[in-house]
Amino acid sequence: MTISVAVSGASGYAGGEVLRLLAGHPEVSIGAITAHSNAGSRLGELQPHLHSLADRVLADTTVETLAGHDVVFLALPHGASAGIAAQLDPGTLVIDAGADHRLEDPLAWEKFYGSEHAGTWPYGLPELPGHRERLKGARRIAVPGCYPTSSLLALTPGFSAGLLEPEDVVIVSASGTSGAGKAAKPHLLGSEVLGGMSPYGVGGSHRHTPEIEQGLSAAAGESVAVSFTPTLAPMARGILTTATAKVRPGVDPADLRAAWESAYASEHFVRVLPEGQWPATKMVVGSNYAVMQLAYDPHANRVIVSCVIDNLNKGTAGGAVQSMNIALGLDETAGLTQQGVAP
Amino acid sequence: MTISVAVSGASGYAGGEVLRLLAGHPEVSIGAITAHSNAGSRLGELQPHLHSLADRVLADTTVETLAGHDVVFLALPHGASAGIAAQLDPGTLVIDAGADHRLEDPLAWEKFYGSEHAGTWPYGLPELPGHRERLKGARRIAVPGCYPTSSLLALTPGFSAGLLEPEDVVIVSASGTSGAGKAAKPHLLGSEVLGGMSPYGVGGSHRHTPEIEQGLSAAAGESVAVSFTPTLAPMARGILTTATAKVRPGVDPADLRAAWESAYASEHFVRVLPEGQWPATKMVVGSNYAVMQLAYDPHANRVIVSCVIDNLNKGTAGGAVQSMNIALGLDETAGLTQQGVAP
Amino acid sequence: MTISVAVSGASGYAGGEVLRLLAGHPEVSIGAITAHSNAGSRLGELQPHLHSLADRVLADTTVETLAGHDVVFLALPHGASAGIAAQLDPGTLVIDAGADHRLEDPLAWEKFYGSEHAGTWPYGLPELPGHRERLKGARRIAVPGCYPTSSLLALTPGFSAGLLEPEDVVIVSASGTSGAGKAAKPHLLGSEVLGGMSPYGVGGSHRHTPEIEQGLSAAAGESVAVSFTPTLAPMARGILTTATAKVRPGVDPADLRAAWESAYASEHFVRVLPEGQWPATKMVVGSNYAVMQLAYDPHANRVIVSCVIDNLNKGTAGGAVQSMNIALGLDETAGLTQQGVAP
Amino acid sequence: MTISVAVSGASGYAGGEVLRLLAGHPEVSIGAITAHSNAGSRLGELQPHLHSLADRVLADTTVETLAGHDVVFLALPHGASAGIAAQLDPGTLVIDAGADHRLEDPLAWEKFYGSEHAGTWPYGLPELPGHRERLKGARRIAVPGCYPTSSLLALTPGFSAGLLEPEDVVIVSASGTSGAGKAAKPHLLGSEVLGGMSPYGVGGSHRHTPEIEQGLSAAAGESVAVSFTPTLAPMARGILTTATAKVRPGVDPADLRAAWESAYASEHFVRVLPEGQWPATKMVVGSNYAVMQLAYDPHANRVIVSCVIDNLNKGTAGGAVQSMNIALGLDETAGLTQQGVAP
Repeated sequence: MTISVAVSGASGYAGGEVLRLLAGHPEVSIGAITAHSNAGSRLGELQPHLHSLADRVLADTTVETLAGHDVVFLALPHGASAGIAAQLDPGTLVIDAGADHRLEDPLAWEKFYGSEHAGTWPYGLPELPGHRERLKGARRIAVPGCYPTSSLLALTPGFSAGLLEPEDVVIVSASGTSGAGKAAKPHLLGSEVLGGMSPYGVGGSHRHTPEIEQGLSAAAGESVAVSFTPTLAPMARGILTTATAKVRPGVDPADLRAAWESAYASEHFVRVLPEGQWPATKMVVGSNYAVMQLAYDPHANRVIVSCVIDNLNKGTAGGAVQSMNIALGLDETAGLTQQGVAP
Repeated sequence: MTISVAVSGASGYAGGEVLRLLAGHPEVSIGAITAHSNAGSRLGELQPHLHSLADRVLADTTVETLAGHDVVFLALPHGASAGIAAQLDPGTLVIDAGADHRLEDPLAWEKFYGSEHAGTWPYGLPELPGHRERLKGARRIAVPGCYPTSSLLALTPGFSAGLLEPEDVVIVSASGTSGAGKAAKPHLLGSEVLGGMSPYGVGGSHRHTPEIEQGLSAAAGESVAVSFTPTLAPMARGILTTATAKVRPGVDPADLRAAWESAYASEHFVRVLPEGQWPATKMVVGSNYAVMQLAYDPHANRVIVSCVIDNLNKGTAGGAVQSMNIALGLDETAGLTQQGVAP
Repeated sequence: MTISVAVSGASGYAGGEVLRLLAGHPEVSIGAITAHSNAGSRLGELQPHLHSLADRVLADTTVETLAGHDVVFLALPHGASAGIAAQLDPGTLVIDAGADHRLEDPLAWEKFYGSEHAGTWPYGLPELPGHRERLKGARRIAVPGCYPTSSLLALTPGFSAGLLEPEDVVIVSASGTSGAGKAAKPHLLGSEVLGGMSPYGVGGSHRHTPEIEQGLSAAAGESVAVSFTPTLAPMARGILTTATAKVRPGVDPADLRAAWESAYASEHFVRVLPEGQWPATKMVVGSNYAVMQLAYDPHANRVIVSCVIDNLNKGTAGGAVQSMNIALGLDETAGLTQQGVAP
Repeated sequence: MTISVAVSGASGYAGGEVLRLLAGHPEVSIGAITAHSNAGSRLGELQPHLHSLADRVLADTTVETLAGHDVVFLALPHGASAGIAAQLDPGTLVIDAGADHRLEDPLAWEKFYGSEHAGTWPYGLPELPGHRERLKGARRIAVPGCYPTSSLLALTPGFSAGLLEPEDVVIVSASGTSGAGKAAKPHLLGSEVLGGMSPYGVGGSHRHTPEIEQGLSAAAGESVAVSFTPTLAPMARGILTTATAKVRPGVDPADLRAAWESAYASEHFVRVLPEGQWPATKMVVGSNYAVMQLAYDPHANRVIVSCVIDNLNKGTAGGAVQSMNIALGLDETAGLTQQGVAP
């Protein structure tokens, strides 16, 4: 039986990656492809790398065009998905790549997004403890943010195992520019980005901070405080997250590695590298993998975890498709890219 | 029936891309993976983006390790393949990604490579007139060079249709650095390459020049002279070829487009873009597609064709797998990536 | 005596580079710094690399703010400079970095720019035969385009010496993204540009084509036809021009080199590299140099010249300051950067 | 009076940048230019961006070639400078861009470098408290490492003012590839570096860790523990350091900014940006500036400082020339670039 899927926000980077994956998914038939200001255009003008879909024409993003599919992907600006989802059949699987339904705490939502909270949906990061079960049969799924995906995968094993102190996590991430979207802004011009790096959202103001704290707190069973600094790197795709946390007194640093390895031993898309090998974003670009390595730093009694993902793939579209597979009872790896594209 | 395949030169960029494609090929089982100085290493150390093959160990590149497979890919320095192929069973499909068996003219070989000519094998560019037929059932295949792939696809339609003058073709190509291989040379360091461009092999000395002339001459039915200048661009993958030729007297420039469109109308992996849209290498990176556009330039009475490919994919490994599929009677697109990875 | 200089268009890339050079010019005092929509801003917000000028505030670009200086640099959109220049004192040196006064042929102007021709000013490329003399004492100077600067420097020696055929010049240039300016356009986003190359203005439609033809025709003493194809490269600065022309019958290819060497023997900012060494854009980034090498290609009886410049420096601001120095009788090298910034 | 200077290690990136600056220094005459395996080559072959020095020939790096100059720059592998310095006249100013004489603690040296400690020289970072005085008249100067330069400038004001906790500093830096030097290693190839990021030296093993701890401990007046993680970014030049430290109880976060501003109020080459503006490496590439911004992060009660430098300029050659100027009583800014080269 073929699953019919509609994709909104198809002119953006997230929507494009969802389409790239779905076009190769063996169980899926792509129905409506929709956009807002680009409705009426050929997809080939906007996503010229999607050769097999080049002649498809974008419909307008409305409830009418999206209705009647088994699955609807929403890759929309935040604030736009709740209204649409409410009008879609409860039996339709709605997967929101935006931020609207990730946070559990309405106050955190209001503080960081300045609008009313739209509610919380099952969180599409199945490698976190307990999450895969919640995704099975779900009909509403919130896709995690790209930075939270890498940060939570990096540190959750240590918090779940009770090895880390909750009060002083420091995370610094470098992201490719596609994470900032396709809207033309001067500071995202190639001339500005090529050959340079810059920070942004410093001091805890980035909207992914509460999402990271929420996930780590759930793993720790107590409130975890995070200092998160994102930076923009001169590459189109990829996130390198350096995540550090203090090791609890009495923990033998030699035991850290076992906690990470056992947490991911049966996970298809998460790899803890052999000792001595460090991740690089190019190992995962184009794929749904998260790859990591860890070290104990005696200078500060901290564990340092380096974790790489493709922000558009595992960090967005890959995570979305993986969650769809779980929700619908398909093979979890269906349609997901097994290898990175390197060099 | 599963086809068993061996891949030599597996630690290099071409070998890595062959493995990436074969790992996703539905009809193939990857047997021996071999290398020279890296024999004994885990593939995960050398090609850490090939997640599903990470624990495979590289064997030594010998006739013994390669024998006994249905297909053997040779991604070796030039001069190395003829000796190995001679010792493999004549029924084994041997696909040489190196240069040894591309040229038909022994004198051209000797002039550009300085050694004895090893003979000519069917040329793995099925989109050229007559070549697909020659590949069917072949047991020895020479994979074209990456520059010739883009140059021949760009200009063959015009020469086949008798629209172009043979005596003054000018081609300038920009290639990503992976075309230069994985050997550590100072001028290929990131510090040297990042943020800059440079030419090399200027004046007709690049070894791909006779291969381009051979292919265009075959299409034209007379000797075609080419001035070819390759340049190195600050990107890992991709070739942008700007190929120009004088239009014959009496040809209506308005007829040029029809020749190109009809030449590729039934080709799966070659796209002539709609008028007004120009190719970009990122449309094809990670995929087996060649994408092109053409214009008539009245200043010099020339047709200008811009053609992009992924040098490692359509320009090497993708062309190799496509040729394998044809030789063995498989679906020509099996295992080949349908979409580019962008942005 | 200090020369007072005003700079308009100071928020753009060309204006920023003019300011960078003038800030280090020993004879110059920077007066008004002006912009259009950014008037009122601190320069430090818009050009944060210009540390010594960070606290200067941008004035509005009007005749009033520009008047009263010895020199006025105009880095404005085309069409804007003629009106301003007409209202400035005839004794003021006005240097136009825009296109308005480069072309001599009003018909060419109207065809490519679609407006009325504003007249022709002395052309700020002193290394072309006769041009340095015309710049001495000039009070109106048109700064050449960046592509014409590299193309004319590349081929003029051959045409001046009568060695080249006029009817079939082919030029392919790769430019860094700063040549496309600072306006935020989707195709210039870092995500689009990083890791890829693309052509534009193919088929003779780029506005620099008539400017190149004008300059080469002047050198040849007859009409020269040029096929010019610009491409966009993933780097912020730099142009690599590959310029080719047919060699006249009877010319000994061995004599070509001497023509180029003698043409530039006494030029400070143009270097013909020793045989065997090829230019790279990073040799000249940040400097006012043009560096080139040439080869004879027997396949097409063509000379191939590779020429690199920094599009913002020698291609715009450096050429402008060099021309100012000549016009005012200063040391021609004053304020101009002698070394590239590499790697 | 002209100062004669010799530069060793002239074929590497640090040596090249020293030469670039010295060639524009108004008080300096460049004497011997030396190298090891490249002795006998023209400088134009190895540093083709140094146009004014292209015809200089490299001498062998020996005491004989270096002796007889007022100043000798050593840009050599660690371990090589002590022996040479011992044989140079005590009145000669010897400036070591290598690591040999930076650390005060012989045990730290031996632990991280595995050889005998060569002694400690005045540390060439004049913006640190007390250091400028120690450099005046000095005849032996150790140039700081590039990571320590950015890290110490970032955090010293807070430690000097007693605002920060000493026990848990976390620093993550992204560096351009030139910091890894010019030796051809596979992981530094353009194909590997372009489009990706990777960490290295994780867990406190990078040799710059003890140097950072030494400097911060001196500022704090007590032992400071640092977790330092360097990462490699796809750019040729530049360091972005994200440095964080816990704020002491009782400190009003609103007072942090004043401490940084007052620390650098009279420093020419260090800028604390106006509130709301964040640094980018391209603000400083090609210049001797360090630019920074800070924020208080309430999530972890930490100050986050982002600091950018050009690793080859302020981080190596610029710091070296600045120290030379101080040692010899010259204008501290002589020969140092005042503006960054952007975009």
